Amino acid sequence: MDIAAVNALPYEDFVDILGNVVEKCPIVAAAVWSRRPFVSSTALEACINDFIDALPESGKEGILRCHPDLAGRDLQSGTLTRESCEEQARAGMDALNSAEASRVAWLNEEYKKRFGFPFVICARMSDKADILRQLSERNQNERAVERARGIQEVKKICHLRLRGLVLTDAPNKL
Amino acid sequence: MDIAAVNALPYEDFVDILGNVVEKCPIVAAAVWSRRPFVSSTALEACINDFIDALPESGKEGILRCHPDLAGRDLQSGTLTRESCEEQARAGMDALNSAEASRVAWLNEEYKKRFGFPFVICARMSDKADILRQLSERNQNERAVERARGIQEVKKICHLRLRGLVLTDAPNKL
Repeated sequence: MDIAAVNALPYEDFVDILGNVVEKCPIVAAAVWSRRPFVSSTALEACINDFIDALPESGKEGILRCHPDLAGRDLQSGTLTRESCEEQARAGMDALNSAEASRVAWLNEEYKKRFGFPFVICARMSDKADILRQLSERNQNERAVERARGIQEVKKICHLRLRGLVLTDAPNKL
Repeated sequence: MDIAAVNALPYEDFVDILGNVVEKCPIVAAAVWSRRPFVSSTALEACINDFIDALPESGKEGILRCHPDLAGRDLQSGTLTRESCEEQARAGMDALNSAEASRVAWLNEEYKKRFGFPFVICARMSDKADILRQLSERNQNERAVERARGIQEVKKICHLRLRGLVLTDAPNKL
């Protein structure tokens, strides 16, 4: 779908199609519909990022808390959103050996106990080894640093989900 | 559940239980979890209302756009949230005669065309005749007035949903 088609969508269709670019937060797409028309997919993404940035810190934590655990119970029980399921599977999170699975479960719990929100990472920009390393390392950060880092990852996830839904801007002619 | 039990919930359970007090906006409950402990259910509700009030106008419109049409396609197709389904049924929205149904469908479309968000009303504080009257009358308002009015209704809906989930504060002893 190109940006002209996106701009022509009534809000119901816009939210149906784009409502999960930020995981389980359809309010984000529903809010930025107010800003249409968008001159490009980049402009749409910038509006989404602006909306997220303008939220109070509790709201940013709220976004993180709407995310599932990596390789957690939602993956095991099949209740992940379609987008998360594909992203986690592509990074090999559905095929951990039992030692890896125990380690991830333990680190996820430590992370949540420490920060009060889940470890969020853009799995599609990473691989299993890198994800496991970051999960361990980021557990050492300060809370404010991790909140900001988690939101950076949310934006990367959003970027890729958007790219799968809206045609990117045509490159400038040389 | 009393407020002490609510305060003891990890965020996952808090969001599972309270995530739909604002329709399809789990971010709201997920955000206010940061503010616990709550001294009372009234304090919890105040935190939710503060979060909503602090959103930019686009965010308030976003909340409204996460609501289903009254007596709309989600009711007919059975895809309403459990809470909305009960509330609409209790107000008789699932038992409109065909003239009423056509009128509601037409007024909903007019409303959405005019305002860019759906007509939201706390159905449990109203009855069929009153809802039909308000749907017609509120179509005449200015956009900013209707946005504010819709958000008032969102807060009433939230109040009743909360009351169904969290024990209200014990009255002071005389």
